[in-house]
Amino acid sequence: MQATKAAIQKITGINIATPKGFYASGLHCGVKHKKLDLGLLYSVKPANAAGVYTTNQVQAAPLKITQNSILQEGKLQAIIVNSGNANACTGKKGLADAESMQLQTAQKLDIPSHYVGVASTGVIGEHLPMDKISAGIEKLVLDSELKGSIDFAQAILTTDTVSKNTAYSLKINDINITIAGTAKGSGMIHPNMATMLGFITTDAAINQDDLHSALRYAVERTFNCITVDGDTSTNDMVLMLANGMGENEELNKNHPEWELFLEALVLVCEDLGKLIAKDGEGASKLIEVNVLGAKTEKEARIIAKTVVGSPLVKTAVFGCDANWGRIIAAAGYSGVKFNPDAVRILIGEDEVVVDGEPVPFSEEKVRTYLKSHEIHITVIMSEGNGNGRAWGCDLTYDYVQINASYRT
Amino acid sequence: MQATKAAIQKITGINIATPKGFYASGLHCGVKHKKLDLGLLYSVKPANAAGVYTTNQVQAAPLKITQNSILQEGKLQAIIVNSGNANACTGKKGLADAESMQLQTAQKLDIPSHYVGVASTGVIGEHLPMDKISAGIEKLVLDSELKGSIDFAQAILTTDTVSKNTAYSLKINDINITIAGTAKGSGMIHPNMATMLGFITTDAAINQDDLHSALRYAVERTFNCITVDGDTSTNDMVLMLANGMGENEELNKNHPEWELFLEALVLVCEDLGKLIAKDGEGASKLIEVNVLGAKTEKEARIIAKTVVGSPLVKTAVFGCDANWGRIIAAAGYSGVKFNPDAVRILIGEDEVVVDGEPVPFSEEKVRTYLKSHEIHITVIMSEGNGNGRAWGCDLTYDYVQINASYRT
Repeated sequence: MQATKAAIQKITGINIATPKGFYASGLHCGVKHKKLDLGLLYSVKPANAAGVYTTNQVQAAPLKITQNSILQEGKLQAIIVNSGNANACTGKKGLADAESMQLQTAQKLDIPSHYVGVASTGVIGEHLPMDKISAGIEKLVLDSELKGSIDFAQAILTTDTVSKNTAYSLKINDINITIAGTAKGSGMIHPNMATMLGFITTDAAINQDDLHSALRYAVERTFNCITVDGDTSTNDMVLMLANGMGENEELNKNHPEWELFLEALVLVCEDLGKLIAKDGEGASKLIEVNVLGAKTEKEARIIAKTVVGSPLVKTAVFGCDANWGRIIAAAGYSGVKFNPDAVRILIGEDEVVVDGEPVPFSEEKVRTYLKSHEIHITVIMSEGNGNGRAWGCDLTYDYVQINASYRT
Repeated sequence: MQATKAAIQKITGINIATPKGFYASGLHCGVKHKKLDLGLLYSVKPANAAGVYTTNQVQAAPLKITQNSILQEGKLQAIIVNSGNANACTGKKGLADAESMQLQTAQKLDIPSHYVGVASTGVIGEHLPMDKISAGIEKLVLDSELKGSIDFAQAILTTDTVSKNTAYSLKINDINITIAGTAKGSGMIHPNMATMLGFITTDAAINQDDLHSALRYAVERTFNCITVDGDTSTNDMVLMLANGMGENEELNKNHPEWELFLEALVLVCEDLGKLIAKDGEGASKLIEVNVLGAKTEKEARIIAKTVVGSPLVKTAVFGCDANWGRIIAAAGYSGVKFNPDAVRILIGEDEVVVDGEPVPFSEEKVRTYLKSHEIHITVIMSEGNGNGRAWGCDLTYDYVQINASYRT
């Protein structure tokens, strides 16, 4: 797919509201102490919508509402999100609260209520302060694309330290279309889709069914390949809205530029996934694990995820310790079969294991490399042609501190 | 099985060498800087032997040697163990080194080499300093039961802060028999059987095949239900030796007192498992999770293990934070199906969730409870009669510190 990359351009500035016809907004309504905690995303036209949801059986109320709403027509025109409270494990009242957020937003925008998606993130098991949320929805005003994008991206954060945005443009039949995304997620991040929310907008016209499979394809290779702490949350969701205002010839699986579109979508999701991993709770480094030569792509991803999720690998990276034994041990318990005697491991550019055995390397050089902000670990097997990547972060004192006192 | 418990007595003092005919020994040979690092366990008669091994595909050399040796006659008479170096990922030289440890020990004791089990624990990927090991084996002398037991238990430790021992006696047809155990393990502890070594001795006469199934039964419910950090090591092994010197009528699955024996064996393994969890790297508290009312015993254990292994639950316990939302979220991603709306959760004696929703509780009381050294979390479902337990520890700053700098 390399050859096509030139056709995809990264866009800086503005973000979630970059694609034509999208507006956003964010404000502080009082769920959190001071920071923005309520966001609204809006498309001037109803958009084809696709969602991917947490695999946790305990599913928060807003996810149920959003899933059911998309099922009705496959469309959304707005998304209302709060942070600071997950509205999870909140029973019937929780469902009623999510419904009431949806209804109030729909009335305000004068659209059908099933055109409004609802998302929440934050503490589990407390009822939403509906008076504050409701007053907040009343106050929301759709801002300029720039201010709206910035505020929206802020309003969805919890323990994140930075907001996470990206956008790309590409030409479909010589017409410029744009894909943008914003996400949040910092702890309880694990395949599949832990406390993370992702919102993707595009002005491309896309067939409704194929939009869903495109999103699944991209999420499988990006968001589902990041891990911070192995905990899978009750609230994760990636929603994608395609409003067709780019007026391209409708994209579908058989369109000659479908692959190009998929590639751009993967880039959007990969950027967001890496931003989440890098901002993992307490993280000081992004870790990328590349597995080459596994039997299949899927097996390569499983091994990569297991290595990048190992607390011992994570602490070793934090401590700048080239402890490759933990890397091979993690690969070994990934559940994927491979020949350990044919494994080669690189930390950065340096070979540390060949044929399953250690080789001499400069401890000093590798230790210096491990002080970088982005660490690449490569595991090369000889099982086949399956390559896969996963992203995570180091495990630090700060992770413990953040999570020992999150609720109180 | 409660009624039978009175028939099983805990024994204090002495340990791994308590059962008749067992001797042990330990010394410092120089793999580690200062602490004891070489141990020998010996039975005056060849003992029926059973082993349970790591599920990690990357299996250390000593495990391969031991497995093959037991396969020959189902017997062992001695076990040689070193700590400080795992002899894992060490290729052909590693295998030759393990064989040479076995052979030298066999020659010293004048027994067939396949009667000697070999175990190693410590850093992965470095070759054993065979000169030191060999000189150490030469120096080993079988000590008095007490001194030998203490030294052996010390010699197998790595980052453990205490040695881990237990013993029970019971009557089989009015004859007193004894089961004793010692174990090590502190990090890389996870079902199934992470960097942990367990050695169990008994003077009971037991049918060889049934000994193996008894050990599997006990390990499944104890060692495989502990987790420190989710990492499964390359070196884990539990070996059990039954030398028959108690001269009881041979135990087998159909013996009327088979259940009693199983129960005592589970007690030995449970004590050791809990000692390991409590001494988890950096741990300040033992956490026991009880799951009641799951569909099956096995499903209950899976849920219990997932909850006790969640980094977010572990950090919350460290921070004395009654964050039950993380408990129900972990149960939800365990992979076991259950109705989340029928779940009840207790922290200590205090109900915090009923029917999947929070109930009012005294934050102050639960916070005080969470300051204890042993924390009990109970998750009650309404799926069936399956009960199961798992043990772990809190996740602390010290875990990060220990593992950021283990190798260097």
